[in-house]
Amino acid sequence: MAEVVFQRLTLIGLGLIGSSVARAAKATGAVGEVVACDADAAVLARVAELGIADRVESDPATAVTGADCVMLCVPVGALAEVAAAIAPHLAQDAVLTDVGSTKVSVIRDVGPLVPAGVHFVPGHPLAGTEFSGPDAGFATLFEGRWTLLVPPPGTEAAAVDRMTALWRRFGSMTEIMEPAHHDRVLAIVSHLPHLLAFTICGTADDLADESRQEVLRFAASGFRDFTRIAASDPTMWRDVFLNNREALLEMLARFTEDAQAMARAIRWGDSAYIEDRVLRGRKIRRSLIDLKQA
Amino acid sequence: MAEVVFQRLTLIGLGLIGSSVARAAKATGAVGEVVACDADAAVLARVAELGIADRVESDPATAVTGADCVMLCVPVGALAEVAAAIAPHLAQDAVLTDVGSTKVSVIRDVGPLVPAGVHFVPGHPLAGTEFSGPDAGFATLFEGRWTLLVPPPGTEAAAVDRMTALWRRFGSMTEIMEPAHHDRVLAIVSHLPHLLAFTICGTADDLADESRQEVLRFAASGFRDFTRIAASDPTMWRDVFLNNREALLEMLARFTEDAQAMARAIRWGDSAYIEDRVLRGRKIRRSLIDLKQA
Repeated sequence: MAEVVFQRLTLIGLGLIGSSVARAAKATGAVGEVVACDADAAVLARVAELGIADRVESDPATAVTGADCVMLCVPVGALAEVAAAIAPHLAQDAVLTDVGSTKVSVIRDVGPLVPAGVHFVPGHPLAGTEFSGPDAGFATLFEGRWTLLVPPPGTEAAAVDRMTALWRRFGSMTEIMEPAHHDRVLAIVSHLPHLLAFTICGTADDLADESRQEVLRFAASGFRDFTRIAASDPTMWRDVFLNNREALLEMLARFTEDAQAMARAIRWGDSAYIEDRVLRGRKIRRSLIDLKQA
Repeated sequence: MAEVVFQRLTLIGLGLIGSSVARAAKATGAVGEVVACDADAAVLARVAELGIADRVESDPATAVTGADCVMLCVPVGALAEVAAAIAPHLAQDAVLTDVGSTKVSVIRDVGPLVPAGVHFVPGHPLAGTEFSGPDAGFATLFEGRWTLLVPPPGTEAAAVDRMTALWRRFGSMTEIMEPAHHDRVLAIVSHLPHLLAFTICGTADDLADESRQEVLRFAASGFRDFTRIAASDPTMWRDVFLNNREALLEMLARFTEDAQAMARAIRWGDSAYIEDRVLRGRKIRRSLIDLKQA
């Protein structure tokens, strides 16, 4: 058995990601003790029932006391409030981390609350499913997936190394990234696709009654795949959109220009342009397959 | 063994759909003899090698002679030319059908070429994968999926009944639909999602070199699902877009308005609006699951 990376890991928020981290921590032996804390009493009771943590604590201050790693697994819009509540109780030399999908906002909101002597290493595992809650998690969720670590300038290298070691024990590949760059890349690979998926579901839902029924009956492969993406957690995604506003709106603007160019090509029968765009989709798909991301 | 629905089925175009029909016809015994015809000699040679048809014919006129059902499985932009070539050789009382994703254009382009005494029953199986060609097909592709039949006014009921019987033998559910209505429903459930998927792949491909590399490396679940949709056949989709222009441009215009409303909500921090749109995605997903289309 390899050594533990942390003696005590406190997880705040036991949804899909938090409960998967709890399971992975126990399954891999990367952590001595897992403490689970969630604002929702029903979630915490379920975590106790599932037996995926060594201890459950409803009070965040008690939960983080004595932990050498505290991982915030709540929607990014809730991070500042949680951080303010736990900050005075964090142990010296503890690592504070998160799993949020936006990183500029996390560093802006949480960074100033981190006490001296605590190491702040924001993180983002690029893993998930369309399901939510502690029952949805599983120990192998992070295997073969990237986890991006986004430490603010001046973070101690040893703390970043410990987080790298933790995620690698969970089977993740890791990379260190600059916050603004992270947010731009995620805007195009994840946030914009989700925005488009939510939007098309709304557009379909607004159709006249007869058509809407048939949309549901005849959802061919295209639409069905979009609804899978669109089935994600509303609070999480509201927070992501609001906290990666600039990068997301820029990517949406670029996308809208491109969609309008496609509309124009369709209107005027520009076959070559249409074929070129479809071929680019294929090319990107092939690149993903070569990179084993598909 | 149930009776055959047709004595001889001639398939023109042996891609994903045509080759799946050939396999389903043999596997279910719904057809006495399957004749395969394709303008591409390599495709026809491969069909012979695979042994999925009883006979291969390179000449369309010869291929359709004596067939009581002729199914055109070529991109919708190629239908008129193929129909013109075979029309004089179609048997009396034969059923002529197709599998194209647009139906107004098919009736407009092919309808006038159909000789008296031949029954024209356009069709559209809502089934497919992102793969193309005769190797990609399989006998169970249509099982549990809808096939829409879109006969022009005045079509003999007996011919529609035979096509219904054929698709049901392949495991399909069937429904009769009016052409313009078909094209509107398909615009939102399939054509628009594909247009969005092709477009976002292009938008990503246009990013600066560094970001593009990372888009490929860090394709989180959202983007990856879009590339799967976007990996489809370029000729087929070019033809679909050009032949369902009006309905597709209308759905894209509605979608664009909705996306702009979402952008505005993000810019001004309208949480309630964003949550409402995300919840609608979930609701539609749940309806699909209830209808067993997910």
